[in-house]
Amino acid sequence: FLSHPQDLGIVAVGFSGGQGKAGVDAAPTALIESGLLTQLRDELGYRLHGHDAVHLYTDLVPARDPPHRGMKNPRAVSAVTRRIAEQVHAQAREGRLVLTLGGDHSIAIGTIAGSASAVRARLGRELAVIWVDAHADINTPETSGSGNVHGMPVAFLTGLAKEETEEGVFGWIGDEHRISVKKLVYIGLRDVDAAEKKILRENGIKAFSMFDIDRHGIGRVMEMALAHIGSDTPIHLSFDVDAIDPMWAPSTGTPVRGGLTLREGDFICESVHQTGSLVALDLVEVNPRLERDTGNDLGANETVRAGCSLVRCALGESLL
Amino acid sequence: FLSHPQDLGIVAVGFSGGQGKAGVDAAPTALIESGLLTQLRDELGYRLHGHDAVHLYTDLVPARDPPHRGMKNPRAVSAVTRRIAEQVHAQAREGRLVLTLGGDHSIAIGTIAGSASAVRARLGRELAVIWVDAHADINTPETSGSGNVHGMPVAFLTGLAKEETEEGVFGWIGDEHRISVKKLVYIGLRDVDAAEKKILRENGIKAFSMFDIDRHGIGRVMEMALAHIGSDTPIHLSFDVDAIDPMWAPSTGTPVRGGLTLREGDFICESVHQTGSLVALDLVEVNPRLERDTGNDLGANETVRAGCSLVRCALGESLL
Amino acid sequence: FLSHPQDLGIVAVGFSGGQGKAGVDAAPTALIESGLLTQLRDELGYRLHGHDAVHLYTDLVPARDPPHRGMKNPRAVSAVTRRIAEQVHAQAREGRLVLTLGGDHSIAIGTIAGSASAVRARLGRELAVIWVDAHADINTPETSGSGNVHGMPVAFLTGLAKEETEEGVFGWIGDEHRISVKKLVYIGLRDVDAAEKKILRENGIKAFSMFDIDRHGIGRVMEMALAHIGSDTPIHLSFDVDAIDPMWAPSTGTPVRGGLTLREGDFICESVHQTGSLVALDLVEVNPRLERDTGNDLGANETVRAGCSLVRCALGESLL
Ligand SMILES: [Mn+2]
Ligand SMILES: [Mn+2]
Ligand SMILES: [Mn+2]
Ligand SMILES: [Mn+2]
Ligand SMILES: [Mn+2]
Ligand SMILES: [Mn+2]
Repeated sequence: FLSHPQDLGIVAVGFSGGQGKAGVDAAPTALIESGLLTQLRDELGYRLHGHDAVHLYTDLVPARDPPHRGMKNPRAVSAVTRRIAEQVHAQAREGRLVLTLGGDHSIAIGTIAGSASAVRARLGRELAVIWVDAHADINTPETSGSGNVHGMPVAFLTGLAKEETEEGVFGWIGDEHRISVKKLVYIGLRDVDAAEKKILRENGIKAFSMFDIDRHGIGRVMEMALAHIGSDTPIHLSFDVDAIDPMWAPSTGTPVRGGLTLREGDFICESVHQTGSLVALDLVEVNPRLERDTGNDLGANETVRAGCSLVRCALGESLL
Repeated sequence: FLSHPQDLGIVAVGFSGGQGKAGVDAAPTALIESGLLTQLRDELGYRLHGHDAVHLYTDLVPARDPPHRGMKNPRAVSAVTRRIAEQVHAQAREGRLVLTLGGDHSIAIGTIAGSASAVRARLGRELAVIWVDAHADINTPETSGSGNVHGMPVAFLTGLAKEETEEGVFGWIGDEHRISVKKLVYIGLRDVDAAEKKILRENGIKAFSMFDIDRHGIGRVMEMALAHIGSDTPIHLSFDVDAIDPMWAPSTGTPVRGGLTLREGDFICESVHQTGSLVALDLVEVNPRLERDTGNDLGANETVRAGCSLVRCALGESLL
Repeated sequence: FLSHPQDLGIVAVGFSGGQGKAGVDAAPTALIESGLLTQLRDELGYRLHGHDAVHLYTDLVPARDPPHRGMKNPRAVSAVTRRIAEQVHAQAREGRLVLTLGGDHSIAIGTIAGSASAVRARLGRELAVIWVDAHADINTPETSGSGNVHGMPVAFLTGLAKEETEEGVFGWIGDEHRISVKKLVYIGLRDVDAAEKKILRENGIKAFSMFDIDRHGIGRVMEMALAHIGSDTPIHLSFDVDAIDPMWAPSTGTPVRGGLTLREGDFICESVHQTGSLVALDLVEVNPRLERDTGNDLGANETVRAGCSLVRCALGESLL
C-alpha cells in the first residue's frame, strides 16, 4: 500500500501529558541515541525523513488547562495530537511508511488520525489497527478512573468517545480520522478495567489476551489476528512497550506482570512486517527516566534495547 | 456441582509438620494480609465462610511423636489432616466451594479426604483431582527417602499406601475419603523419584510433565487433562506453588528449575475454572519465611503475589 | 546405530583457540567437578571410557601461528581438531556413544570429522548433524569478519570452505570426514551474518530460527527437524550453550538475547534421545571464567548447571 516503501517518515514525539509520570518524553532521544535510526538507515536500507528533531510541542501547552469531562491536560493533549496528526498525515500522503517514537500512548490519537486520513485520501481505504498493549486504552472520559488520556485514545479514535460539538476540546477529530471497531485487533491484554471489558464485548472488538496467547501460542494468535484484518487492508501497528513483560521492559509507567516475552513481541512485529501491509508504526510508553530514580540504569537500557528490537523487527529485520 | 457456587468456605491451615522447614505455616496469614480474601469478596463477589481464623492445630500435636513406618511426625500429621478433613467436609456438605490455604502439601490428605467424602455424600459421585506440582508426592512410607509426609499424600489418598488396621496411625482414612487413580491427573511434574515413576507407570496414572507442556503447549495439555476427567466429574485442584518456576515463586521448600511460568500457572487455574466443575482448591507450600533469612523479602513477596494470582484465576478472575 | 549404546566415550577438550576469550578451556573441568560424569554413570547407567583426563593439546600449539586466509591460530586449531577427530573416531569405531565436552565450537571440526568417518567405516552411512546454536558458524575464512575459527566449523565440515591442496592448513579434512548440507539441521539461530544467510539460502540448508520456534512451538519444530533427517540416519548433536538464553546460560563468549529457555533446550535434547539415533554429542562454549571477572560466580554456576542438564537429557534422563 506504500508507493515509497523504503522511505521512512520519522515523527519523534517528546510528550508526556497523557499521563502523570515525567520521563516518557525522553524516550525518542534515548532510542535515537542508542542507534535506532542509524540501524534503520544502514542495516535495513531506509531513507529517513523528518528525523532531524525531537518535537516537544511546548508552544502548544496552554498556561491554564483545567479538566474537561474529567480529562487531565485536555487542551494540551488535544493540541499536540492534532499537530501529530498533521505531521503523520504529511509523511503518509507521500506514500511513505511512518514511524512515530513516543511519548505516552495518548499520542496515538494523533498518529492514527493522521494515518487513517492519509490512507483514505491516498487509497480510498479503511485503516486497520493492531494495538499491542497490556491495556485496552478504550476508556471514555466518563468511564476513566484516572482522567489520564493515555487510557482513552482508542475511544476517541473509534468514535466511542466524541465531543458533542466541533468546538469541543477534541472536536477536531472528524470521521476522516476515525477507524472502525471492526478493523481493530488487540494483542497482549491483561489489565482491562470492568468498563473497558464491557465496551469490548458490546462492540464485538477482536482481542487476544495473554490467556489466548498461552492457549494457542503466539504463532496461531498472529494468524488469527491477521486473518481478521485480511490482506486487503493497510495496517497501523501501535505498540505499547508495557505489552512486554517487565522482565524485559521494566521502565514504563504502568508495568503489569505476565506479559509478552521479548521473543513474542519481536515475533508479532516480524509477522506484521511479513504481511507487507504495514503503513505506520508507533512505539510508545518507554520511560528511560523511571529507573534513574533508583540509581540504576540497567532497566532503562534494557527497555530501550527492547524498544529498538521491536521497531527493527516491524521494519524488516529478520533472523534468516 | 455446587448448590451455592458463590459461597466460599475458607480453611486456613498454619501447619508445617509434613516437612522440615519452618515458615510454611505462616503462608495463610501472609496471603490474607496481602489482600487475597478481600479481593475474593469485593472483586469476585464471593460470600466468605470460616475465614475468621488461621488454624494452628497446636492442640493436636503430641509431645512425643516417634517415626512410624519411617514417617516423621506421623501422629501430628494424621491428627491435623483428620481435623482438616472434617473442616473441609463441613464446608463442602453445604454445597460451597472450598478454598484451603496451606501449609505444606501433607495437608491435602485432609482436604481431599474431606472433599471426596462430601462429594460422595452430597452427590453420590467420585471426585477427580488435578495435582499441579513439580513433584508427584506419591511415595509410600516405604519408598520415601526423607520420611516427610508431604511427599506421600497421593499414596494415602489413592490407597496405594494404607495402614494395616484401622487402629494404625492413618487408619482413619476410609474408602469414602479416597480417590481413584483413574481420576487423578498430574500437571507440571519435573522431579519425580525412581520409585514414584514406577508407581505412576504401573497404575497408569495420567501425568503431564514439563516435557509434555513444552511439546504440546499448555493450551493443548489442559484440553487433554480435562478430557481425561470428563465433564461429569467434580474437580478438586491441589496446587503446589513449587510447580511454578523459582523465577516467579522462589520462596518454597523444594524449588526445582524448569517450572511453569506464572502465565502457565494462571492459565491452568483459569482453564479449570472455566469447566464449571471446580468444587475445592488447595494452595500449598508457599513459605514466606524462606527468604527472610537472607534479609530479602522480595522473593517472599513475589511468591505470595504469585499464590494470590493463582487462587484468583481458579476462582474466576479473567483477563477479558 | 550403536553396538554398545551403554558405553560412553568421553573426550574432554580444554581448548579455546577458535576464539579470543580465555576460560572456555576450563569448561570440561567445571562440568566434571559439578558431578556430570558421576551422574551419567550412577544415574543413567553408562560405562565411561576415556574420561581420565582433560586434554589441553599444548603440544600441538605451534610457537608461531600467523593468520592463514584470515584465520587466527589456524595451525593450532587444525592440529587440535585433527587430534580430536582421531579421538572421537577411536571411540566411535567401538560402537560407543561419544560425548565431547568443549572448548569452543571450532572443536566440532574434529568431533564431526571423527564421527562422520567412523559412521562411514562402521555402517557405510552418512551422518546427520543437528546444530543447536544462536549462530550458524558457517562463515568461510573469506566471509568471516573476525577470523575466529569457531565461526567457521560448518563451512569446513560441509566442504563449503576447503583448502586448495592437501598440504593446506586444514588439508587433512577429506571426503570421509565431511557431511552433506542436506543432512544438516540448525535449531535456535538468531544472530546470523549477511554472508551466512546467503550461504544458508543458496545451499537450501534446513534451519529453524527463534522466529520458527515462536511460530510453531518447540514440539512441532523438533518433529519437523527430525522428519527432515529421517529415522534411517545416525545423528550427531552439536550443542552450543549460547543457544540458551543468557537468562539461564550467561557465561558464554558471545551471548545473544532472545534465546531458548532451558526448558526448550532440555526438550530438544530429550527429543533427540528419543529417536534412538544419537551417536555423538558435543557441548561447547560454556565459559566458567567469564563471570569470575565480575566477582560473581552465580552466572558461571548457572551455566555449568544448564550444560549438565542438557547433556543428561540428551543421554536419556527423562522426567517420567
Ligand atoms: Mn497503551
Ligand atoms: Mn499499556
Ligand atoms: Mn512440590
Ligand atoms: Mn507437593
Ligand atoms: Mn557455535
Ligand atoms: Mn554460538
